[in-house]
Formats: sequence, C-alpha cells, structure tokens
Amino acid sequence: MTTNRLEAFSDGVLAIIITIMVLELKAPHDVTLEALMPELPKFASYLFSFIYIGIYWNNHHHLFQVAQKVSGSILWANLHLLFWLSLIPFTTSWLGENHIADVPVALYGLNLLMSAIAYFILQSVILKFHGADFVLRKAVGKDLKGKLSIVLYIVGLSLSFVNTWIAISMYILVAIMWLIPDRRIEANID
Amino acid sequence: MTTNRLEAFSDGVLAIIITIMVLELKAPHDVTLEALMPELPKFASYLFSFIYIGIYWNNHHHLFQVAQKVSGSILWANLHLLFWLSLIPFTTSWLGENHIADVPVALYGLNLLMSAIAYFILQSVILKFHGADFVLRKAVGKDLKGKLSIVLYIVGLSLSFVNTWIAISMYILVAIMWLIPDRRIEANID
Amino acid sequence: MTTNRLEAFSDGVLAIIITIMVLELKAPHDVTLEALMPELPKFASYLFSFIYIGIYWNNHHHLFQVAQKVSGSILWANLHLLFWLSLIPFTTSWLGENHIADVPVALYGLNLLMSAIAYFILQSVILKFHGADFVLRKAVGKDLKGKLSIVLYIVGLSLSFVNTWIAISMYILVAIMWLIPDRRIEANID
Amino acid sequence: MTTNRLEAFSDGVLAIIITIMVLELKAPHDVTLEALMPELPKFASYLFSFIYIGIYWNNHHHLFQVAQKVSGSILWANLHLLFWLSLIPFTTSWLGENHIADVPVALYGLNLLMSAIAYFILQSVILKFHGADFVLRKAVGKDLKGKLSIVLYIVGLSLSFVNTWIAISMYILVAIMWLIPDRRIEANID
Repeated sequence: MTTNRLEAFSDGVLAIIITIMVLELKAPHDVTLEALMPELPKFASYLFSFIYIGIYWNNHHHLFQVAQKVSGSILWANLHLLFWLSLIPFTTSWLGENHIADVPVALYGLNLLMSAIAYFILQSVILKFHGADFVLRKAVGKDLKGKLSIVLYIVGLSLSFVNTWIAISMYILVAIMWLIPDRRIEANID
Repeated sequence: MTTNRLEAFSDGVLAIIITIMVLELKAPHDVTLEALMPELPKFASYLFSFIYIGIYWNNHHHLFQVAQKVSGSILWANLHLLFWLSLIPFTTSWLGENHIADVPVALYGLNLLMSAIAYFILQSVILKFHGADFVLRKAVGKDLKGKLSIVLYIVGLSLSFVNTWIAISMYILVAIMWLIPDRRIEANID
Repeated sequence: MTTNRLEAFSDGVLAIIITIMVLELKAPHDVTLEALMPELPKFASYLFSFIYIGIYWNNHHHLFQVAQKVSGSILWANLHLLFWLSLIPFTTSWLGENHIADVPVALYGLNLLMSAIAYFILQSVILKFHGADFVLRKAVGKDLKGKLSIVLYIVGLSLSFVNTWIAISMYILVAIMWLIPDRRIEANID
Repeated sequence: MTTNRLEAFSDGVLAIIITIMVLELKAPHDVTLEALMPELPKFASYLFSFIYIGIYWNNHHHLFQVAQKVSGSILWANLHLLFWLSLIPFTTSWLGENHIADVPVALYGLNLLMSAIAYFILQSVILKFHGADFVLRKAVGKDLKGKLSIVLYIVGLSLSFVNTWIAISMYILVAIMWLIPDRRIEANID
C-alpha cells in the first residue's frame, strides 16, 4: 500500500478542520468597529488554532514524505490523530467564547495533549513498520521535542486552574518550539 | 478509466462527513465542567460515527487499492454508498440529542444497514467488472463478514424497540468485527 | 498545463456541495416518527440534488478523462460551472422548506438551467482548445442531449407558475436522460 | 520535497472557503420573489468573493505549475496566504449583511490587502528558493501588477470612509486587472 491516499484523506480532513473554525466568527449586525470587538477573543483563538493545525499539517507532511509504505495500524493511528485534531474547532470555540476561563483553557490543553500523544503513537507505528536504516529514525532520534511538548502540555493544563495565562504561555511555548524551522528530516533526506 | 479521481472525490466526501459531525458539538456558554456534561452523549455518538466512517474509509481504501479500472456502474455504486454515509451526520445528531430513544436508535441502525448494503453492491459491481483471477475475489471469498454485518444490523434495528441497549450492542459488535485487523486483502496482495 | 489540479479542485468543491446539503436536515427534538415527517420534503430535495450533483461529477469526470491540456479560459469556464453548482444547496434548501411552491421551483429550474449552460460553455471551450481529431468531438457529436436538457429546463421553469409538478417532472426527465448510461465517451476512448 | 501535497492541501482549503460562503445565503421562509430580495446584497458579495478566490486559485495554480520544489519557508508562506483568504467568508458576510457601510467595506479591503501581501511574500520566497534561470523570475518581472494591486487596495480602503462606492470600485478594478488573461507565465513556460 502506498501513502498517497492516506495523505489525500488527511489533507482533506485537516483542510476542513482549519477552515470550519472560521465559521465561529459571526459578522455582527452593527457596522461599527466597536461591534467587532467582542469577536476579538474568537479571532485570537482562531489564529492560534490555525497555527497549531498548520504545525500538525507540516509535521504530517514531513512524516509521510519519508514513509514508504502504509499498514492497517498506520491507517488507524492516523485516524486516531485526526480524531483529536477534529475536536480543536470545538475546544477553540469554547475558549474563544469565554474570555479565558480555567476549565476551557484546561480542556484546550487536554486536546493539544491528546493530539501530541496521538502524533507520537503514529510516529512510533511508522518507525516500527520500517527497517533499521529508515531515514526517519535518525531524524527523530530520541524525539526530545515530542516528549518535551507532552510534558509542557501536562504542566500547562494542570496550572490552568492556578493561572490561565501560565497555561496559555506553555501552549504558546510549544507552538514556538515547533515553528522554529526543524531541519532534521529535511537534512536527513539530503 | 483509472480509479484516481473516484478515490479523490470519495476521500473528499468522507473527509467532510467525518468532520462536519463535530459541528454538532456546541460550546456551552458556561465555563464549568457541569456545563459540558450535556454534550457527552453527542460526544459519544460523534466518537462512534467517527469510528464507523473510519472503517468505511479503510475498507474503501483497500477495495480501490486492488480495483484496476472503473466503469459507469462503479461510479454510481460508489455515489450510492456515499449517499447513505452522508446521512450519518444527521442520524448521529438525532441519536446524540435524544439520550438513546428507540426511534433514533432504529433509524441510525437503518442508516448503517443501507450503507452496508451499498458497500456490498459496490463490491459486487467491482467484482463483476474484473476478471476471474482478480485478487479481490479470493480476498472477499464468500464475504461472511459482510453478510453477517447486514444480519446483525437488521436484528439490531428491529430490537431497538424492545431494548435500545441491545440494538446499540449489535452496532458496536459489527464495528469491533471490522476493527479487528482484516488481513485478507493485504495478504492476497502479497 | 495538465488537468490534474483542475480536477482535484473541482472534486473538492463538488464533494463539499454534495455534502453540505445534508446540514439542512435538522434532527427534530422529539423522538417520534411523526417528528421526522416535516423533514421528508427536505430529504426528497436532498436526494434529488445529490443525484444532480452526482450526474455533473460523472460528466465532469468523463470530460477531463479525455481533455489533455488546460488553458486559462478552461480554468474560468470550470469556475463558472462550479459557481452555479455551488448555489444548488441554497435553491434546494428553499425548495425543501416550502412544500413545492411556484417561485422556489422556478428558481431551482433556473439554477439547473444556468448549470447546464455553464457545462455547455465549458465543453465548447475544451473542444476549441483541442485538435480536429480530439476524441471528445466524436463522442459529443451534435450534443443533442445537452441542447435538449437546456430546452427542457426552460420549458419546465416557465411552466412552474402554471403547475409545479409539470416543472418538477421536466427536471426529473432530464435527470433520467443523463442517468441512462451514456457510453459515448467510454466507447470512443476504446 | 515536491509540490504535490502543498497543492492538494491548498486546493482543499480554497475549495472549502469558496463553498462555505454559500452557507450565508439563507432560504427565506416566504415563497415570493420579494422575500428573496433581502438576499441580493449577500448574493452580490458572494459572487464577488467567489471571483476573488477564483483569481487566487488561478494564480496559485500558475505559481506551483512552475515551482519545482518546496521548503519549510514556502509551506509557511503558503499557510499565511491561506489564513488571510480563510477570513474572506467572514468579511464577505459582514459586507453582505450591512448594505455597504464604511467599516465593513474598509475591513473587506484590509482582508484583500493582507491576502495580496501574503501572495507577494509567497512569490518572493519561491523566487528566492529557485535558481537564477527560474522561469517564474522572467514571468513575474518587476511584478507591476502585484504592486499596483497593493497600492489600489490601500487607496480603496482609506477612501471607504469618504465614499464606499469609490472603495468598491477600486476592489473591482483590481479584480478586472487580474481577470484579463495574464499570459506571462503561460508564455514563459512555452
């Protein structure tokens, strides 16, 4: 089995996830700038989730750039990842509607955590299915970044009941960590 | 005619079906865990339908992995399957909104039944269009699994008026039956 | 320029059009069969529009199966077709909500008419862009079917103010005409 | 890295953006032509935004027709463009609901401006990543059209507080400028 269709289906799901979030932004009936203000927290959480889905798409793209074949387990590990990512519009919408309250911030963090774990599982299943000289093995290495993300999410969502801004800072920190160009896979392909 | 575009279009439709179901989950206005509770049945039926669409995508993927060509009848048999699957968000939403009542459970079962029949038809049309040594023929064999699913759906939806939980158990049983790795096609490709 | 990306984009748009129509079906709050009855006209118009979009996807698929190259004019003729098809969920929704009243039936017919004209234009632009021995030229011939459809739509939508059922019969007639396997292109490919 | 998957994902996002705008058109409950009238401004802004997204898809198509490879920076420049385009359904909806008031017209112009800048950045990143004899370099040249668009958007959105119709004329002018067949890339491919 080739990776083509798995990639096409994932692209479809990710494209929809990233786009339906914008449906949460409702045009106000008034035509003043003030009327637009209540949409700002929604806009901020849309932007944030867009970047997050973008990071996942990027990483997914890199992952299947090197994966040469697909098994039944990989198909399901991929669907598992897409399931958690598909909940991001929902948790984003709760976040955006409620000016940064503790439970929504924790739930959003839980969503990010489950997505990160699902990505980790997908990566492991792909690694297991390929040989010892598989290029991804060297690129991922000990996967410090993946593991650190999981730790930061757990810390973040736990602290969201103490201070929501600490939690949000943790989530932003992970995003920045992944936005810094990660040339591991690209370098190992060359 | 090659199978490429049929697969791409089906991927698109399945990706949308699997994703728009999440739009049913509405962020509550309150920010407490209690406010989230009423969303739980919706979440459960979302999860269940996600798995079901995932199973169909997986099987569809396997089917067209081996199909080498496409006819007008195959195009329409495929659209027929997509039609029934496209109703799953609707029947799921009725299920999730109504804490497991008999008519919605029966309608959901009917939807699963019609989808299973449509899949069976699609498979038959593909088999008919290919030669005697077609790899799918050996992989499918007598298709006990496909036929048993149809029987279980009929039993399940009939019993939903007696006890909704028996019906739901039947639907779950079929899902588990398909989730257990089915190596028939993969084995026959090798 | 190859046809790949035009096909992929069209598949995406058609997949969305065919699927978002199901969002019009709203799960009733009651859990009885009676509560489901008001959804029946919506369901009927969903089914009808699904078949129509399916016919267009089928024809589009055949068209670009034989087209070998793409020009700027073809891109825009294709977008023009997608525009009219994208309005079908809207006109379908008005049709389904209003138990077969004259204006919605006429508007639906106008939408079908504009789509048929757009398809005719797209086909002409493709024919113009390809050589004299282009396989589509022979397959299309005088395109009696395409022209007859346009005439039937005009008659149908005009008569919708006299009797809505005559109009609807005309629309169904055109659909049947296209559902009857049209082996022209397939035969000419062989 | 090849451009395939970036194109597939962008096609998905653009297909969704172009199609969800139609969800803003709500079927009126009355069945008269008069009841349809309030939908006309929404229809007009849908048509306008459809053409705009169509132009972007066309240009994007041409861009990646010639781009031979993709880098991490190109992936993010592309996501940046998709982000601004994904807001068009929102700004369109505000425009359509509010019979051409100044703030919505200015915001729509700002959205077009940010999209044009994002496209310019994407194009620059692609140019930078390819060699001196890259076909796009000659096709784009000094990119007068791209730069003029940006200027016209700035003028337009500034003047929207003076007269909304001047602003809208500016936006239409840019659209016409891009609709006039631009054979630069096509000519340079040949």
